[in-house]
Amino acid sequence: MTMRVSSMASPLKQAFSNLAGPAGRRSFATGTRLETNYGFIGLGQMGYPMARNLRSKIAKTDTMYVHDVNPAMSEQLEKEVGNVKVVQSVREIAENSEIILTVLPAPHHVQNVFQQMLKGSAKTSTTRDRLFIDCSTIDPKSSAGVANATHSSGQGKFVDAPMSGGAVGAAAGTLTFMLGSSPDLVPRVTEVLKCMGKRVVHMGPQTSGLKGKLANNYLLALNNIATCEAMNMGVKWGLDPTTLTDMINTATGKCWPSEVNNPVPGVVENSPASKDYKPGFGTALMLKDLKLALQAAAEANVTPQLGEHAKNIYAAVAEDEKCKDRDFSVVYRYIGGKE
Amino acid sequence: MTMRVSSMASPLKQAFSNLAGPAGRRSFATGTRLETNYGFIGLGQMGYPMARNLRSKIAKTDTMYVHDVNPAMSEQLEKEVGNVKVVQSVREIAENSEIILTVLPAPHHVQNVFQQMLKGSAKTSTTRDRLFIDCSTIDPKSSAGVANATHSSGQGKFVDAPMSGGAVGAAAGTLTFMLGSSPDLVPRVTEVLKCMGKRVVHMGPQTSGLKGKLANNYLLALNNIATCEAMNMGVKWGLDPTTLTDMINTATGKCWPSEVNNPVPGVVENSPASKDYKPGFGTALMLKDLKLALQAAAEANVTPQLGEHAKNIYAAVAEDEKCKDRDFSVVYRYIGGKE
Repeated sequence: MTMRVSSMASPLKQAFSNLAGPAGRRSFATGTRLETNYGFIGLGQMGYPMARNLRSKIAKTDTMYVHDVNPAMSEQLEKEVGNVKVVQSVREIAENSEIILTVLPAPHHVQNVFQQMLKGSAKTSTTRDRLFIDCSTIDPKSSAGVANATHSSGQGKFVDAPMSGGAVGAAAGTLTFMLGSSPDLVPRVTEVLKCMGKRVVHMGPQTSGLKGKLANNYLLALNNIATCEAMNMGVKWGLDPTTLTDMINTATGKCWPSEVNNPVPGVVENSPASKDYKPGFGTALMLKDLKLALQAAAEANVTPQLGEHAKNIYAAVAEDEKCKDRDFSVVYRYIGGKE
Repeated sequence: MTMRVSSMASPLKQAFSNLAGPAGRRSFATGTRLETNYGFIGLGQMGYPMARNLRSKIAKTDTMYVHDVNPAMSEQLEKEVGNVKVVQSVREIAENSEIILTVLPAPHHVQNVFQQMLKGSAKTSTTRDRLFIDCSTIDPKSSAGVANATHSSGQGKFVDAPMSGGAVGAAAGTLTFMLGSSPDLVPRVTEVLKCMGKRVVHMGPQTSGLKGKLANNYLLALNNIATCEAMNMGVKWGLDPTTLTDMINTATGKCWPSEVNNPVPGVVENSPASKDYKPGFGTALMLKDLKLALQAAAEANVTPQLGEHAKNIYAAVAEDEKCKDRDFSVVYRYIGGKE
């Protein structure tokens, strides 16, 4: 049985669209799945494994355009997974894709990329449903600016979806995404993100994903230093670090840095600390997120007390010869912890 | 069958002793359980419910002597549970008890009480096995001093066993005890403490229980402020506090203050925050433990950075009209959190 597209009521279209697998669409003429063009910009430590997972989960007939400022990354991905189209500019991504993911380091990268992408019109038959999913961790104000520019250009919808889970989660496809999005886009965005993670939490309207991530990472930044200090204290007092950790993890001190990312070498097998603080989550990234949180807090007239002190500690750790470029649990080494 | 006490080898005596139920002893002439005299000093917010639980768990034929500086507390306990002997001095406790528990507020209280107790000789037939269990949270150095005085007086053995779980845990008998003790005493001490808690963790030699508790509470003090600040930030940014909490609790920010003792009213049912910050764990107690941790850290040449700042925050909260005498999660109110 065939039906004419024009005769379909909008809710039915929506239902069909939701049935089409990862963010795909169905042809209303034939009932078959329409091919989808994906774009992926930013193949760094997080973006590269995410792109690899996305490519492996979408239909083989779907096209995936990729771009990175470093052409070697795109070439490596093409070599590793095949079936991607390496393009030389983000403009080409914008012109050819309906679903575009960006995983970039800082606000100005996101702003620049979108400025280029929004300059021209898309070649796709319709831009009405075009979806921009920004997984970068940037400040909410910059994100809102890019979202507004995108929406007022009429070129598509913009959502923020920063992730947690680190490079390990990105490789394993077990990331958690914090989504800031209008409610109607949540099912479609979730389908895409589930190709790269196991969980998508809708935090509220656009910018809410970033706000959630920054609040979480602010807490993490402090809990990590607190754990390093408490463990250092206990060990200097003569306690066995494993006995102390076991007790804390059944008591009120329990937290992610004590349980999963314990800063004392040998306490948690395969933790960064047990591998000479190989990241993990680099100190520079922790410092970056903490600064973003403090900036966003200041914009809301909130001045966190401990956060400012923590920022100074991470800044010093990031400059320290024995600590730089290592997992943020290396604060334990920085404060003179016994290894 | 009867056997003569004098004919029993020491290890066998020990084995019999271990079989006798909560810290009791058996008559080697009859095989029946010998009555034990308990002493309990300090019937405050923690001590009172602990004494009540201990009385309900030991044999009805055991005697329990109780004392508090405030005679009204002893009388109330006698009225409530019966079967306790209220005495007017700690000396009387010392003279009549084989197992003596102390739950006191500060180092000088513990020092004074032991000075009085160790002055004379005990009336009990033997002081060789007399056991002093100090559940007070004091600094390890003071505790070591009292332990040394006790041991050199030949009047018994001293262990430190501070607890976590708060007034709620004390009432429910679900406390966790952190035990600093020589290994040979652990089974006997554990039997007694299990009458008042569900878990006893042997942290190492005498003072190790206190060291464990102070390290844990140092961590808790910081994690609590961090949680208050992160939640305040998120709420000021417009996030729903329950959505934010749910996300944090499945992410890297998860900690006891976010999960169990969330500082935003209404997020966790029956939390202190949801009951106008009714303690719970009072800010003054948190401040006390934090100061003890900082003192002990300084004695080990450790100077925690964030801890000093946290101390100033709790000191200010404890003086604040809207916050004093409330649960330590009231830091959220102190920093201007939206309730």
